[in-house]
Amino acid sequence: VKLLITSGPTREYLDTVRYLSNPSSGRMGFALARAASRRGHDVTVVTGPVAIREPRGVRIIRVTTAAEMLNASLSAFVKCHAAIFAAAVCDYRPSRRDDKKKPKRAGAWRVALEPTTDIAAALGRVKRHRITVAFALEDHNARPNAEGKLARKSADAIVLNGPANIGDDRARVEVLTAGGDWVRWPIESKAAIATRLIRLVERLANRERR
Amino acid sequence: VKLLITSGPTREYLDTVRYLSNPSSGRMGFALARAASRRGHDVTVVTGPVAIREPRGVRIIRVTTAAEMLNASLSAFVKCHAAIFAAAVCDYRPSRRDDKKKPKRAGAWRVALEPTTDIAAALGRVKRHRITVAFALEDHNARPNAEGKLARKSADAIVLNGPANIGDDRARVEVLTAGGDWVRWPIESKAAIATRLIRLVERLANRERR
Repeated sequence: VKLLITSGPTREYLDTVRYLSNPSSGRMGFALARAASRRGHDVTVVTGPVAIREPRGVRIIRVTTAAEMLNASLSAFVKCHAAIFAAAVCDYRPSRRDDKKKPKRAGAWRVALEPTTDIAAALGRVKRHRITVAFALEDHNARPNAEGKLARKSADAIVLNGPANIGDDRARVEVLTAGGDWVRWPIESKAAIATRLIRLVERLANRERR
Repeated sequence: VKLLITSGPTREYLDTVRYLSNPSSGRMGFALARAASRRGHDVTVVTGPVAIREPRGVRIIRVTTAAEMLNASLSAFVKCHAAIFAAAVCDYRPSRRDDKKKPKRAGAWRVALEPTTDIAAALGRVKRHRITVAFALEDHNARPNAEGKLARKSADAIVLNGPANIGDDRARVEVLTAGGDWVRWPIESKAAIATRLIRLVERLANRERR
């Protein structure tokens, strides 16, 4: 299977130095890439800025912002059979990016943020027969929120993730496939969860082919 | 010399997941710690979240926010003879931190930021005979801005840094000592610049002792 994996955080700059981001380490995305490559798939990873070691034997495209990740992912997706959206894409960005570092002043600094394009949803709209798996990071009302995302992203499965997993080596996830039920996976290393997820993508892709 | 070094970025959370930060890798701070330790000094490093290898033989205190870095630095500073403020401390933080991840909505999200406490300035006010060296990250009006910071932070020297140095292995800096002139140092590895800076602290500390 030709597989696209998005990975890591994005950064959304307010000026030349300051940005909005989140603590995603990129470990889950790179673990997925390693697991998929080991199972013989042709893998392209679009990753935001991460400091961990790159997986070998896969194509890696480095980006910084959500907009760059959208463009790179869209280009790669059209040549793929499946995609896993493991990146922790910033869903808000500053409405403007100053081209000079703003000096510190007394008093408040009011910043307007605007929503970024939802990459999984955008690719979901053009997916046709492609398999897509999305992640939902939720800290409250978790299953209902994730169910809404499964639908809005036109995904074949969604992986429910908690903030505690971010940056950790292990993860506790629950998985919902479209038309199926929630399944709670055992708490395992991201490597083990990655292998489970790649197997799930294989099953979904095989079902699609029939 | 008992030396405090602050290092790395800080993170200022908007909610459970999103934060403001900057791309500081912590390389300069850790290079300073290694250089100082190698030259026989007793080193305490207060570092924000970084993904690089820790220097050995030094005391390391890990913090996340500017407020935590201020508290940890203040505690360490009173037991030290000198401090180098190499951290890229966020100088703004969200006025409130939501304890739930804010769901994505259409439309703007207005965020109010407030200035954080300037750690170098705060410690400068209680420094007495201690030597302090501050960093200034400037992308325009660089020397005048840095001169203002030298005074406001009551520093004995200030290191002028450009955004291009952030996250890089090498750096181009200019240094101003209180009562002296600007000196442009050669572009070198952060390790080499770190050794120069530790030597400068030694000279300033010896001068103070006489």
